[in-house]
Amino acid sequence: MTQLHTINDQQRLKLAPLKIPNRLLMGPGPSNVHPAVLQAMNTPLVGHLDPAFLALMDEIQSLLRYVWQTENSLTIAVSGTGTAAMEATLANVTEPGDVVLVGVAGYFGNRLVDMAGRYGADVRTITKPWGQVFSLSELRTAFATHRPTILALVHAETSTGARQPLEGVSDLCREYDCLLLLDTVTSLGGVPLFLDEWGVDLAYSCSQKGLGCAPGASPFTMGPRAIEKLQKRRTKVANWYLDMSLLNKYWGHERTYHHTAPINLYYGLREALRLVAEEGLEHCWQRHQDNVEYLWEGLEDLGLTMHVEKEFRLPTLTTVRIPEVVDGKFVSQRLLNDFNIEIGGGLGELSGQVWRIGLMGFNSRKESVDKLLEALPLSV
Amino acid sequence: MTQLHTINDQQRLKLAPLKIPNRLLMGPGPSNVHPAVLQAMNTPLVGHLDPAFLALMDEIQSLLRYVWQTENSLTIAVSGTGTAAMEATLANVTEPGDVVLVGVAGYFGNRLVDMAGRYGADVRTITKPWGQVFSLSELRTAFATHRPTILALVHAETSTGARQPLEGVSDLCREYDCLLLLDTVTSLGGVPLFLDEWGVDLAYSCSQKGLGCAPGASPFTMGPRAIEKLQKRRTKVANWYLDMSLLNKYWGHERTYHHTAPINLYYGLREALRLVAEEGLEHCWQRHQDNVEYLWEGLEDLGLTMHVEKEFRLPTLTTVRIPEVVDGKFVSQRLLNDFNIEIGGGLGELSGQVWRIGLMGFNSRKESVDKLLEALPLSV
Repeated sequence: MTQLHTINDQQRLKLAPLKIPNRLLMGPGPSNVHPAVLQAMNTPLVGHLDPAFLALMDEIQSLLRYVWQTENSLTIAVSGTGTAAMEATLANVTEPGDVVLVGVAGYFGNRLVDMAGRYGADVRTITKPWGQVFSLSELRTAFATHRPTILALVHAETSTGARQPLEGVSDLCREYDCLLLLDTVTSLGGVPLFLDEWGVDLAYSCSQKGLGCAPGASPFTMGPRAIEKLQKRRTKVANWYLDMSLLNKYWGHERTYHHTAPINLYYGLREALRLVAEEGLEHCWQRHQDNVEYLWEGLEDLGLTMHVEKEFRLPTLTTVRIPEVVDGKFVSQRLLNDFNIEIGGGLGELSGQVWRIGLMGFNSRKESVDKLLEALPLSV
Repeated sequence: MTQLHTINDQQRLKLAPLKIPNRLLMGPGPSNVHPAVLQAMNTPLVGHLDPAFLALMDEIQSLLRYVWQTENSLTIAVSGTGTAAMEATLANVTEPGDVVLVGVAGYFGNRLVDMAGRYGADVRTITKPWGQVFSLSELRTAFATHRPTILALVHAETSTGARQPLEGVSDLCREYDCLLLLDTVTSLGGVPLFLDEWGVDLAYSCSQKGLGCAPGASPFTMGPRAIEKLQKRRTKVANWYLDMSLLNKYWGHERTYHHTAPINLYYGLREALRLVAEEGLEHCWQRHQDNVEYLWEGLEDLGLTMHVEKEFRLPTLTTVRIPEVVDGKFVSQRLLNDFNIEIGGGLGELSGQVWRIGLMGFNSRKESVDKLLEALPLSV
């Protein structure tokens, strides 16, 4: 072994083993995970082409179809966080010049706009104040104006806590021969979702919210109409890592090597999905709804107001108005430092105006709500 | 909670908790990880903006600089596997029309070609049979012909086991005002690497090989000349997830939210890097070299031949010629099924011709070599 130079030790930190505080994660995600999920992630590695691992991939695919209520064959986990899965939806079906209509009523709508533009889309937007949702007639008007190829909507806007209704949207899309792309990052596992019944063509999510897993392996699904658009592309997908025509050969029966999957995260995701299936989707959704109603009641008893109209509120994430006399950042820092409870602040238009409180996956429990409701008044 | 449809239970698998065989991973990666790394990954989650997590990110940055021997401020872990970090290097500095010269002497050289094309590069190649490397004069001739803006080389070609010498390459690049981009996926942590001394402008790697971590959080670094090209772009980076002008605001002092990091993988990466720093780079490199020489000796004693000339062989990954009378696939399946040992097969040009044996990170131990040398003759 030739060694050519002297080793520079300036960045050679001498560290102690990891010490991390034990937090109750009630922000917009990640959430605390079920101990069984952490335990599964602690399983020794196998290779990404090991028969045992390939079997696990199949299980993940089936269970993702279950939680999303879809029969889409191309239903996989992307090897990155939710943002990568978001980009995967746009990257695969967008070709330069495609008109992509994005519903923007929060931070993640804006992110879709930015991403779609990078794939050469002719991006159009329809906007609403943050915390509100689009009516079918508003969408209809926008369709008549823009005649989009792809409509991108955020089902559960993590920055506002609002749930976008989907009734009738798919019929509108089919009338215009338009694909329906849906962000379900903060809804999957916690909010009723029926992708096939709702005619959703492309959807993405994350692992660390309603599913109660650690972040880093993110659900992605693509139905037949979207696959047809992928197959008819004139250009290669402008993103190698997220190219579904390649990834599908690894997740499908060919098992062609594409990249080294984050093995341990897939262990965790399989366990998290297994737990949801064991509980049953209906019960899982109901649990999220029951606990959030208990939270809303408690917050109202403290004199606080929710930002979103009750009809459109998410069970997974609640935005609470910060009273004018209160320093919101001071409170959330005190919750973190004195009580080890994390809640989120507002983003963009809602910066400084709301707190964001998540009740997702394993954390959607009465016990979490009680801890927060006790600590919050002591932190003002 | 309105529930609109009946839940379809067809994909609701009823699974037992995860059971995974205990493999000795001696293929091209992932490798088995140090038990302390798995343990660190088992630490409960905190948020991606938690002060405790931000401190850990800083530690990862310093230690990555140490293992790469660079002072590059923009040295981070990308939230995806090595392929994502590879794509990040090209995506950030390539603009449509840029001449990217790629050295292709293996599978990953070809991958760079495919990726660079997707970012609009005018891709040129210089090729060699798989297992060989480029001489400086061959590179010089290619520069005179192609006058590239970016030269992409694979330092450690995982598909062939060859190590590309870098002496003089950086001077050539500077002469032509060209950036030097280096794949160090199979070298980081196991093979001497001096990025700054060698004038490397962009490099990427993975976590699951020489560093001995689980896959999913991948080292990326970018020096001042590459940053200048990023800052002077006429177009946005054509990849949102991997856009360093955004990511640098999360890893830098602004701490602007970009995506939810794969928290537990960062725990693991921090621990893996901590262990390398504790051992010391010199010793870590020497250990890889000593163990691979022990392996080569043992394989030769079995009558086997290495594919790569000794001078250019990697200490981390060895390609062994499969004797003509032997069914290579049968042997590797038997090793897996009867001995729980994983080795890799050949890719592309070397398909069916070689086995690929990895000795990386925690797995670079005499004990691993002994196990393989014992099992191999019993598996033919």
